[in-house]
Amino acid sequence: MRIIVDGFGGDNAPGEILLGCARAMDELGIDISVAGDKDKLLSSARELGIEDKFSKMEVLHCTDVLTMEDEPESVLKAKSGSSMAVGMQALRDGKGDAFASAGNSGALAMGATMIVKRVKGVKRIAFAPVLPTTKTPFMISDGGANVVCRPEMLVQFGIMGSVYMEKVMGVKSPRVGLVNVGTEEHKGDDLRREAFALLKECGGINFIGNIEPRDIPYGVCDVAVADGFTGNMVLKLYEGTALAMMGMVKDIFKKSVKNKLAAAMIYGDLQGLKKTMDYNSYGGAPLIGAAKPVFKMHGNAKAYAVQSALRLVRDCTQSGYVEAITAKLAEKD
Amino acid sequence: MRIIVDGFGGDNAPGEILLGCARAMDELGIDISVAGDKDKLLSSARELGIEDKFSKMEVLHCTDVLTMEDEPESVLKAKSGSSMAVGMQALRDGKGDAFASAGNSGALAMGATMIVKRVKGVKRIAFAPVLPTTKTPFMISDGGANVVCRPEMLVQFGIMGSVYMEKVMGVKSPRVGLVNVGTEEHKGDDLRREAFALLKECGGINFIGNIEPRDIPYGVCDVAVADGFTGNMVLKLYEGTALAMMGMVKDIFKKSVKNKLAAAMIYGDLQGLKKTMDYNSYGGAPLIGAAKPVFKMHGNAKAYAVQSALRLVRDCTQSGYVEAITAKLAEKD
Repeated sequence: MRIIVDGFGGDNAPGEILLGCARAMDELGIDISVAGDKDKLLSSARELGIEDKFSKMEVLHCTDVLTMEDEPESVLKAKSGSSMAVGMQALRDGKGDAFASAGNSGALAMGATMIVKRVKGVKRIAFAPVLPTTKTPFMISDGGANVVCRPEMLVQFGIMGSVYMEKVMGVKSPRVGLVNVGTEEHKGDDLRREAFALLKECGGINFIGNIEPRDIPYGVCDVAVADGFTGNMVLKLYEGTALAMMGMVKDIFKKSVKNKLAAAMIYGDLQGLKKTMDYNSYGGAPLIGAAKPVFKMHGNAKAYAVQSALRLVRDCTQSGYVEAITAKLAEKD
Repeated sequence: MRIIVDGFGGDNAPGEILLGCARAMDELGIDISVAGDKDKLLSSARELGIEDKFSKMEVLHCTDVLTMEDEPESVLKAKSGSSMAVGMQALRDGKGDAFASAGNSGALAMGATMIVKRVKGVKRIAFAPVLPTTKTPFMISDGGANVVCRPEMLVQFGIMGSVYMEKVMGVKSPRVGLVNVGTEEHKGDDLRREAFALLKECGGINFIGNIEPRDIPYGVCDVAVADGFTGNMVLKLYEGTALAMMGMVKDIFKKSVKNKLAAAMIYGDLQGLKKTMDYNSYGGAPLIGAAKPVFKMHGNAKAYAVQSALRLVRDCTQSGYVEAITAKLAEKD
């Protein structure tokens, strides 16, 4: 399997990206193509002492870079020669099996839609991160690609998310819930009420009705369906609150010698908790609905997170989730 | 000061409500009127052994009860004889200085609007809980009273929230932020972009621009402005995630004898953290924009939370926040 990686996406490019790729080649037995300026990549590889690994990567040479400030549309025109755009063009042309970038999310969704294209029948591509809970992990679909949505888009987010959780995460009959202000059927705005009615009728998925955000951390569902605005709120507040709480616990443990001793006694268990709630160990998230596997890595991903993300990309791509989504939507047609 | 309390609102009414009222009379030196069935209240007071305290409360006798299943509108018609409606009618008629209920939020907002009425110029009453963060507490305005909003409503939520945080919480020049998917000005949907423009121009408040949910737990703002759908998401996910994390830490401490020992060593500090993040110690939340002080208590409030809520109601009412909101909106007129 060959994974194409955007060498110049994210806060820590290209160094940490290259390092993560090098480690992933070793661990996962995958081939890597990296899009970006050949000279800059080489000198970065030299600095890191991974020249030998780098020599085994294919370089898709291009000198332009798409930044966080660029408009999403720029990936198609002004920045069509950027590492992100070139990577997706290569994926489209069959020069690799999947694409991953830690760059501008909006541009990535735009490129996935217009360069890689969508699975037949897909209205909108969704950004679909899988996050930990106290019990089982869950997916947010859509986690932020589509700020404004129609009800039928939410239904597709639910269907695609369900297929992904079954294929990739091995969940039998994933519980699909609609994120809402209350559990009763009539709750929420028009978008929620119409989406509820459509999800209830749609068949082929295990729709469990409305779910309230307070139950999400306890694993109330496998797929949390939301418009991209709401999904992005859930994603960012969930991550932020978990991190803040971990930080407060950490502060307690550093407060005194006695507390440090207590911390040492339960160090292993605390690390376990940290790992459970650490989204970096999940590494990345798919853009479901794209005709080929496209993944977003965390913007501040370092080598470890890049390596985790590439493991996810490999496992997902092998699972055949794109084909499964294609088949499921063809059924619905 | 006389606070009117809905004796039959919430999961633990009337027992825990009465108990909380009795304790609050002792602690706070306030008078209490309680709305509800006189006989049932008396027999509950007897069971709890607080007959003497109960004899000092004024009872607004009524036999009907508004339930969680009732439509909000019922507070005006079918259930206009319920304890919630009777309590608000008494407030309107000057038979008390503030009203508090742990009952149906939608009905409470409806009653505040139609029975107690709004401050002149207020478009919508907002449910405005104040929550803890790792640094300073913040208010969500609106936390769920208005699922669908226009941009100018969000502006008023910001103004009213700002006045409240200054008057009640003593915050100088409260930082008012718009909850959004990114910090840049152009982010979000039409509602967010239009509200941003209006907030920026409005003057008289310290508008700090868009805020991202991931920064909320770190005290990025004093007032988080949102439509009621988004605000309710933030409220419920924030509470749920904090509780889930506390639960996971607790589980670690119960895992083994060694861990229990470690927990004992830092017991005091852990209790401090729990208290910091415990919304029950905040007790209740105002419905800002109502012409007189109306408060929502947590639906599952027990005596301790009722007592905390009544402390908040007293402090708020004394602060003159309603008059301050009235003056501020008159300026804007």
